[in-house]
Amino acid sequence: MNSQERTKIVSIDVEDIRFRFPALGDGSDAINPHTDYSNPCVTVTSDRGAGVGIGFSLGRGNEQICSAVTELAPLLIGKTLEEVLFDFGRFKWTLSNPIQSRWIAPGAGSYYMAGGAIMNAVFDLWAKLEGKPLWRALSDLEPDQIVRMIDFRYVSHVLTPFEALETLRRGESRKRALVSELLDDGIPCYFTTWIGTGKDELLSQIREVRSDLGITSFKLKVGSELARDRARLQAIRKEFDSDEITLFVDANQVWSAAEAVRWMRSLSEFEITWIEEPTAPDSVDGHRLIRDQLSELGIEVVTGENCPNPQLATQFIADGAVDRFQIDACRMMGVADCLLVYLVAAKHGIPVCPHAGGSGLDELVPHLAAWNHVSCAQSFDRVEVEQVGFCSHFFVQPSEVRGGRITVPRLPGYIVGLTDDAKSRYRFPDGPAWRKE
Amino acid sequence: MNSQERTKIVSIDVEDIRFRFPALGDGSDAINPHTDYSNPCVTVTSDRGAGVGIGFSLGRGNEQICSAVTELAPLLIGKTLEEVLFDFGRFKWTLSNPIQSRWIAPGAGSYYMAGGAIMNAVFDLWAKLEGKPLWRALSDLEPDQIVRMIDFRYVSHVLTPFEALETLRRGESRKRALVSELLDDGIPCYFTTWIGTGKDELLSQIREVRSDLGITSFKLKVGSELARDRARLQAIRKEFDSDEITLFVDANQVWSAAEAVRWMRSLSEFEITWIEEPTAPDSVDGHRLIRDQLSELGIEVVTGENCPNPQLATQFIADGAVDRFQIDACRMMGVADCLLVYLVAAKHGIPVCPHAGGSGLDELVPHLAAWNHVSCAQSFDRVEVEQVGFCSHFFVQPSEVRGGRITVPRLPGYIVGLTDDAKSRYRFPDGPAWRKE
Repeated sequence: MNSQERTKIVSIDVEDIRFRFPALGDGSDAINPHTDYSNPCVTVTSDRGAGVGIGFSLGRGNEQICSAVTELAPLLIGKTLEEVLFDFGRFKWTLSNPIQSRWIAPGAGSYYMAGGAIMNAVFDLWAKLEGKPLWRALSDLEPDQIVRMIDFRYVSHVLTPFEALETLRRGESRKRALVSELLDDGIPCYFTTWIGTGKDELLSQIREVRSDLGITSFKLKVGSELARDRARLQAIRKEFDSDEITLFVDANQVWSAAEAVRWMRSLSEFEITWIEEPTAPDSVDGHRLIRDQLSELGIEVVTGENCPNPQLATQFIADGAVDRFQIDACRMMGVADCLLVYLVAAKHGIPVCPHAGGSGLDELVPHLAAWNHVSCAQSFDRVEVEQVGFCSHFFVQPSEVRGGRITVPRLPGYIVGLTDDAKSRYRFPDGPAWRKE
Repeated sequence: MNSQERTKIVSIDVEDIRFRFPALGDGSDAINPHTDYSNPCVTVTSDRGAGVGIGFSLGRGNEQICSAVTELAPLLIGKTLEEVLFDFGRFKWTLSNPIQSRWIAPGAGSYYMAGGAIMNAVFDLWAKLEGKPLWRALSDLEPDQIVRMIDFRYVSHVLTPFEALETLRRGESRKRALVSELLDDGIPCYFTTWIGTGKDELLSQIREVRSDLGITSFKLKVGSELARDRARLQAIRKEFDSDEITLFVDANQVWSAAEAVRWMRSLSEFEITWIEEPTAPDSVDGHRLIRDQLSELGIEVVTGENCPNPQLATQFIADGAVDRFQIDACRMMGVADCLLVYLVAAKHGIPVCPHAGGSGLDELVPHLAAWNHVSCAQSFDRVEVEQVGFCSHFFVQPSEVRGGRITVPRLPGYIVGLTDDAKSRYRFPDGPAWRKE
């Protein structure tokens, strides 16, 4: 009997942690003028120790994920890590059904993100028991163990378990070298600015991040007002040409397909590398059409942070709708769903640039990007991982950027944990940060 | 100033109404063994009267929609019916943003269904003020008024407002004749049986519905166990050939694409007209692949009850993924989103067969099907509207089937209302039906 077979889950607890920001401050964009980045924070306790997992939301709605964690919890009690982690095709089905609240948004929404937060905690527990950071524990697995972690049901017409196995096996010989390269060099990243930031402040932020952290790729939120977008981009390009900094823009879903094309034509003179979320996050055909129109301008189309599950991600990746895909570590049903998306993307030659910036996301995604680099795509070509860092101090192992690259995590686990101070101050609704009101 | 411009919304209230069924009873299927059909029940009060609107869920999760109604309500207070109903492209955006809980499932889930329940109430109010059942009030509008009710943002690359206008204008001359035909003949419908029903009971139910209501199309839930599915279908076909009854089957999303094809090949000898929800409800490519494989067997592929919004519906309809589309009156953002889907379907020659069976859905969908027949598709060719009726007694205007057709609604409004008895007995968690526990 291996150690996973011996480890039984005995309890699951959840806390509603909400950080508190001013409107139009950090986190603001064209459709979200006021965000309070939040985490449903799950503790999975086993007879051999505990793991911590988070979901992510923008404030209100966090209670829906917490409530769904409570609804799902009984399905895990008494299960072994082996059943939950290494037979996920079966277990994910158990965790998805029969849940009455699944109807609210099948394959998405609160019950699905709750499943993700729980699974993130189970992976954290497993990595802690292995004594390794999650990316390393995953990289040390055999290809067939990774395949057993994945539920292929809804994507097997695009990627079979056998194809996944082949991909992973092909990479085996280079793994050791890539691990040591990663430990030395870290992971390429970019920095995101917010829509509420004024032009002067934006420029000084870019100067500062560039000189202090060595980051040379920046993302701007656009889509509220064309003249304002143009003025901000013009000011940046006046100071930094495209050899000095790379620019991405993000419209957060505000346009129709035709508007997206018109708006981006007007911004193209500023040498934009990608437009993110130009339209509805579930419009594969809309993105494909925009991509077809913008390719002659050399502007890429990317999306993914609002893509809830592997079957939708697969359609964006395999049907020519995106140039790169942006996975979110808390929207899908945990680590295993993300691994599947990485494998599909590798098959189709689509780089994965994880979404982060939100509380805890900066800390989670380096594990995914690192595993992908060691075991799956084995390349950082056109991979840039989002990294903002303004919530990192809430976490036991804050993400760290040096020389424009993210340092790979060293502590055993995945999110590892929130600091005691963050947990007590920002507990909703009774923590002191919320009681003031 | 017209009457809509004079009518202002003054308050919005919501009640959590949950009916209570035994496990494996009415409502059960391959992924939902225990449903308690429920309605978030919204009252929109204006200075000229009130309207009632419902959402629909399977029990737990109903509170999420109710909570989102409360979050959205302030956005409607003080608005006129004109702003809310006849400038929906703008208003829907207001109602969708900036809502923090939108992040949980953008374009889907609790906030979106809450918007739907609210809009259903606004339409109920408007039809009551017009003194007509909703289908009739909609049918009496000019084509340009319908177009102003619709938000085209995310589907304008598939259907422009101008194309919608053309479709509606083409139909103008036949409207009067189709209304009187509808009043005489009603709407074609089919009956759904549940997965928990035993074989003998199933047969006697089919016999009874056929002789009492004149319905000759029946849907069976399948996908749990192939031998059981075959035995049940065999028993039915032994008694009724395909001239006597038409058979549909519904797998409620349990299969991969390849499994769906294998399973349906095994059932094809029983002359099945359609397979419903063979795989994930957001897998356009999966459905297209299954449809391509099953077309040689003469089996159609349908889906839609779990399709949350027009932009996803449009992809199923326009990209060759379905033979018919099954709209749900409570999942999208109310009546206007449904009208848009009908218009897209009409353009592509795809019949729309609304999903019903759930509490209140049987009562809502005849309005949509009737409007479509009068103003949009103007044909019942391959249109069959689901109708089960076991919850109809909870509503002020229960749906009614005669001679195998649904009688068109006569009372002013849309859902019109729940009975006082239903509202007081099934209010969650304090109504007597729930207090017993």
